[in-house]
Amino acid sequence: VDDLQRLLDIEAIKRVKARYFRFIDEKSFDEYIKLFTDDAVLKFDLAAPSAAPRKRETLTRNGKKEIAEQWQARDPDMKTVHHVHAPEIDILSDTEAKGIWAMEDIVEYPDSIIHGYGHYRETYRKVDGEWLIADLHLTRLRVSQFVKDHANL
Amino acid sequence: VDDLQRLLDIEAIKRVKARYFRFIDEKSFDEYIKLFTDDAVLKFDLAAPSAAPRKRETLTRNGKKEIAEQWQARDPDMKTVHHVHAPEIDILSDTEAKGIWAMEDIVEYPDSIIHGYGHYRETYRKVDGEWLIADLHLTRLRVSQFVKDHANL
Amino acid sequence: VDDLQRLLDIEAIKRVKARYFRFIDEKSFDEYIKLFTDDAVLKFDLAAPSAAPRKRETLTRNGKKEIAEQWQARDPDMKTVHHVHAPEIDILSDTEAKGIWAMEDIVEYPDSIIHGYGHYRETYRKVDGEWLIADLHLTRLRVSQFVKDHANL
Repeated sequence: VDDLQRLLDIEAIKRVKARYFRFIDEKSFDEYIKLFTDDAVLKFDLAAPSAAPRKRETLTRNGKKEIAEQWQARDPDMKTVHHVHAPEIDILSDTEAKGIWAMEDIVEYPDSIIHGYGHYRETYRKVDGEWLIADLHLTRLRVSQFVKDHANL
Repeated sequence: VDDLQRLLDIEAIKRVKARYFRFIDEKSFDEYIKLFTDDAVLKFDLAAPSAAPRKRETLTRNGKKEIAEQWQARDPDMKTVHHVHAPEIDILSDTEAKGIWAMEDIVEYPDSIIHGYGHYRETYRKVDGEWLIADLHLTRLRVSQFVKDHANL
Repeated sequence: VDDLQRLLDIEAIKRVKARYFRFIDEKSFDEYIKLFTDDAVLKFDLAAPSAAPRKRETLTRNGKKEIAEQWQARDPDMKTVHHVHAPEIDILSDTEAKGIWAMEDIVEYPDSIIHGYGHYRETYRKVDGEWLIADLHLTRLRVSQFVKDHANL
């Protein structure tokens, strides 16, 4: 891959991840589901390695059908905020890439808030000219649960 | 716009937004006001769509004069932190572009903290070789008010 | 520096900073220490300019040996999260650059949390084809201490 193409690919992949989170937080499922390869595998660690073993579950979703089911199982009124930072993207070939992102997420339930931090490690595949997420693994630095103590404006 | 120019424009626009927030938080009005076109229109939603209707005001500033008035109306001792993430920038022509950014802001008042999250949707115009903000609209995912419960170091 | 090389250098420097924080939070000292020039100088303001003078200390580390000592003095069980945002990178020559980053950090102690916000101003030097951090200065917008009121998952 030449230097200019590599920069274009990096920018395109940054954008895939930006849209991934925007679609989650704005609840645009029809756009969200288009970001994955058909065989995409998503793994989400629910707690940090320092957490008690019983809390250290990893959720796995195999393929677009399970990704869609995960979406549909969420409370549609739940408010979420996801931010990603500081990408490290490697273009491996014309159609393969990998990346690492720092992340923060907030999930607001009626009485509590889960506030998490961690990293995504991902691979991407270019299919019909578009970069898609082929797999991702979210690891956790810290996941905290707060009793809700604020007023929502 | 050719590919290299497009990447240069994207990087330049990312930088405009980085400076927009740095100047707000570092309180550099003279630099801040230079980032806008003369006819810039800024719209700030104060609450999320899920908030009570009476809270869902949108502040609008039409043109540089009103932007300057908004700045001057702020408490000069107020501490603010603004972060932006995950830009999606589209270069539309040699002199026009649009972008979406995820955002987080913290405004500290003497007894309370407002902590907000949302997205900016913006357009940019190149004037005399410099990208400027022509309009922006801040929408909100979540805006929370906390009683101040911390010590400032 | 031509335009393409400038963009490549900017992307490479963004990546140095991404790795700088990932290695801190993932506690990868062997990788972390390679990111600096031998004579790197790091300055960390511990509080905002608005803080009481007795709190406004600046920690300074001169050279790789002191940077390594600072690392080793930390509690190895301490959980940290560092995020950086909105880079403004200037390539000054083939081997010199400077940058500004917005930042947020969280340090979790057994009974309290320090949550800070500020900016890094840095210079970089290219040595044997790799961009390294030559000096940095962290200034603070806001540093708050919270009593720990959450459960860790």
